[in-house]
Amino acid sequence: MTEPGTTDTQPSDRDVALIVGGGPGISASCARLFAKGGMFVGVAARNPDKSVLENLEKTLGVRRYTCDASEPAAVERLFANVVRDLGAPTLVVHNIDGRVPGIFGKGIAEADPSMVLATLRNSAFSAFLVGQQAARLMRKNKPNANGAKGTIIFTNASAALKGYPSSGAFAMACHAKSGLAQSMARELMPQGIHVANVPIDAAIGWTQEDGTRAHRRAGTTVDDNMADPDCIAETYLQLHHQHRSTWAFEVVLRPWVEKW
Amino acid sequence: MTEPGTTDTQPSDRDVALIVGGGPGISASCARLFAKGGMFVGVAARNPDKSVLENLEKTLGVRRYTCDASEPAAVERLFANVVRDLGAPTLVVHNIDGRVPGIFGKGIAEADPSMVLATLRNSAFSAFLVGQQAARLMRKNKPNANGAKGTIIFTNASAALKGYPSSGAFAMACHAKSGLAQSMARELMPQGIHVANVPIDAAIGWTQEDGTRAHRRAGTTVDDNMADPDCIAETYLQLHHQHRSTWAFEVVLRPWVEKW
Amino acid sequence: MTEPGTTDTQPSDRDVALIVGGGPGISASCARLFAKGGMFVGVAARNPDKSVLENLEKTLGVRRYTCDASEPAAVERLFANVVRDLGAPTLVVHNIDGRVPGIFGKGIAEADPSMVLATLRNSAFSAFLVGQQAARLMRKNKPNANGAKGTIIFTNASAALKGYPSSGAFAMACHAKSGLAQSMARELMPQGIHVANVPIDAAIGWTQEDGTRAHRRAGTTVDDNMADPDCIAETYLQLHHQHRSTWAFEVVLRPWVEKW
Amino acid sequence: MTEPGTTDTQPSDRDVALIVGGGPGISASCARLFAKGGMFVGVAARNPDKSVLENLEKTLGVRRYTCDASEPAAVERLFANVVRDLGAPTLVVHNIDGRVPGIFGKGIAEADPSMVLATLRNSAFSAFLVGQQAARLMRKNKPNANGAKGTIIFTNASAALKGYPSSGAFAMACHAKSGLAQSMARELMPQGIHVANVPIDAAIGWTQEDGTRAHRRAGTTVDDNMADPDCIAETYLQLHHQHRSTWAFEVVLRPWVEKW
Repeated sequence: MTEPGTTDTQPSDRDVALIVGGGPGISASCARLFAKGGMFVGVAARNPDKSVLENLEKTLGVRRYTCDASEPAAVERLFANVVRDLGAPTLVVHNIDGRVPGIFGKGIAEADPSMVLATLRNSAFSAFLVGQQAARLMRKNKPNANGAKGTIIFTNASAALKGYPSSGAFAMACHAKSGLAQSMARELMPQGIHVANVPIDAAIGWTQEDGTRAHRRAGTTVDDNMADPDCIAETYLQLHHQHRSTWAFEVVLRPWVEKW
Repeated sequence: MTEPGTTDTQPSDRDVALIVGGGPGISASCARLFAKGGMFVGVAARNPDKSVLENLEKTLGVRRYTCDASEPAAVERLFANVVRDLGAPTLVVHNIDGRVPGIFGKGIAEADPSMVLATLRNSAFSAFLVGQQAARLMRKNKPNANGAKGTIIFTNASAALKGYPSSGAFAMACHAKSGLAQSMARELMPQGIHVANVPIDAAIGWTQEDGTRAHRRAGTTVDDNMADPDCIAETYLQLHHQHRSTWAFEVVLRPWVEKW
Repeated sequence: MTEPGTTDTQPSDRDVALIVGGGPGISASCARLFAKGGMFVGVAARNPDKSVLENLEKTLGVRRYTCDASEPAAVERLFANVVRDLGAPTLVVHNIDGRVPGIFGKGIAEADPSMVLATLRNSAFSAFLVGQQAARLMRKNKPNANGAKGTIIFTNASAALKGYPSSGAFAMACHAKSGLAQSMARELMPQGIHVANVPIDAAIGWTQEDGTRAHRRAGTTVDDNMADPDCIAETYLQLHHQHRSTWAFEVVLRPWVEKW
Repeated sequence: MTEPGTTDTQPSDRDVALIVGGGPGISASCARLFAKGGMFVGVAARNPDKSVLENLEKTLGVRRYTCDASEPAAVERLFANVVRDLGAPTLVVHNIDGRVPGIFGKGIAEADPSMVLATLRNSAFSAFLVGQQAARLMRKNKPNANGAKGTIIFTNASAALKGYPSSGAFAMACHAKSGLAQSMARELMPQGIHVANVPIDAAIGWTQEDGTRAHRRAGTTVDDNMADPDCIAETYLQLHHQHRSTWAFEVVLRPWVEKW
């Protein structure tokens, strides 16, 4: 892949994708798929020095950015840097779970208020910040052949569909992301920006160093019983290419054997 | 396209698609897209002698079948004929609106009970009959490379999402289809059969003889303000190819400018 | 309670309640509560010669009517008889499950089509027929002090909220009732008729001859782990009395220990 | 009303209600209804020195508390004071809209991030803080005759049901409250605590000084076209008294003429 460093002065017709929240699962799969398809791709993470991201940089030219997406100024800076380096984004994926370690499995009486607020900020508030910057830039994009100026996708979770017990903070965060996505969709779609909310209603099994696909808590994938992030990335790409006469707002993805 | 007449004795790896409910909109678009992609395709309609279907037969080898899908015996016969002619289906689309002419716009006090029952039979009950035959056959299919035995897609409408005033019969029918689709998805997905409900939340503008895209009551399409059946067909194909680790059950499609 | 036989010639300000679908559970509880509160009450059932109904007649003057609510002419006759005997109804409850015995637990491939259609007719179509007659009559009612002309309540079930596996016919029927109720609510509420859908998301434990509360399949009630029909009736009465500035359309009732 | 000052040492069987978020609408109506029904009642507000609250104190003995409900320590202190003054609460209402003035009508690109975060904190995070304190205390309550230890009610809004354009912050906040309420309901109901989410899908018309009922932006109430807070309070009381065999989690209230 060639360096996309000059795209700011010489606008390209190539798609520019920014993935916010960077790890070895959905983000890496998206970056790989988008880059292989010819997009300029950036990935932002609090800590982008993960081997999977470094590898994507080396092999596919994916740009890495450091960003705490819960900080307004940091998100503004991130988008400015992406515009400078890659061009104005046409595809933005918000892919942040946002739960702080101490909040998992805490009942309503036990949850630490500061952790609840941190989870809300990391997840829902960062989704707003990323969505806002994306909206500001995309509105100025030239419509593509489909009449579309861009696509904004929010990765979401089962907790967006159902508030589980002992999981109030995450239920709040995921529901808030859904509400934001809906509001943005109703506002931005008529302006040519496709907004989608994609709750993954399952554990995600990403490829480990030993080649197996697994989830930290749910164990190793057997018979596709966990969501494959490469397949999630494909759905995201389809959403990006979807014709504006038939835009999907919400797609819930779950493995064939999942109970729901 | 070659005649697929011998597929019953010599099973093919080619997909076999059956579209029930045949007109110039979604059904024709599906038949065209599926056939061009190499599937054996059958289309069933009460009256399959429509020029658009005859044309698909001539140009792409799409088989036409006569079937009143609200009759159990007729649906059973249809599937038997398809198996004989094309092979066991791997992709079945139920694409029947089902409203009888006199039911449109009738308030609860005015609706004729026999028309309400006819609408329920044409739409929801036929969906059951088609889904049942599809399930019976697909369960015996050999899993494909994705581990899937088949895909069953129900076209649905805005009335599946919201019961509109003066539209009780259609609200009943569309909600019933959603309930059926959900029940089938929970039952059949773990058996390797992908079931999807696709409410089109808009008027559908299909290509008229003069080349414009239009809807009988909503007029001519302007700036993609109606759902394009060719694009709906693409989503159906994507659902069929979706990996079983990440199956979508429901996808609502609406134009970018639609109010919802 | 005095015989309400002359109310047709001498209109009363007393509420007239009709409960369609009559058994020892919700219907009996409603009839008892409404009659004790001073309403004229009728109960219709295919077979109204059940001891619990005969007892309500003797002790509280509740009128019993024979009616197959899936038959348009029978439902029309029922309402005419009620108007003649009790006056025009101001509160109508549709309380029919509608499943035929052979449909329980049948998978999509096994369900008998004629039983699926019978279930749809018994449940959703009868709801339409009852709703239609109620709407026709109530529109002519004089508004009460709350500005309301009447209340129509549909008892519904968990299957209205979720399509369970091996339960497609009931999922269709219950979803259809929800769609109908929604359509009627949007149409009739602005005309002064309160329409409500009440899914009972649990087994209902009604009082047996030995005094225990139990459900045929789910066993005996322990610690209020099943819905008590007397309490359901109270919610119905509250809905009927609810001020038109704050009408609830849907209320899901479930026991405190129910999983959902 | 007598001063309830000694209830901490001498537990009373009277209900203790705390309403968080205090103004002339739902809060005042609840306080009035609950106090008239014999409960000890407290109302907390950032500024409790409003004439309507002072009046409730004088006439009905309602206690006023100063509390910024978005501050963990303040909420903890509030509940401690209520326990000391009135006893452990058995009915807690969270009734805070939470929007800061500058956020109304702002599109996604225009909304000030600090105002978005403030709205989230005021509304959803305060709901968590109030819910947490309520849960901690109620779990230790003695079950009442209904087997219930208490009731927690969240007032919510249309934005909980639908994310409206140019209203992203409020959509986030209201959806988050719904998610929290759901999670709490699934966790606490089996512990004997009734949790309810009550979206008011309409403007609320509360009684003005001149006796009319009106809404700041929507004007004067005509023919009950706005939700009457006195009627909302009645529904809250019914939820509190609802038998645990049939608890409603969500009740959406809207005027008869509201579009939805």
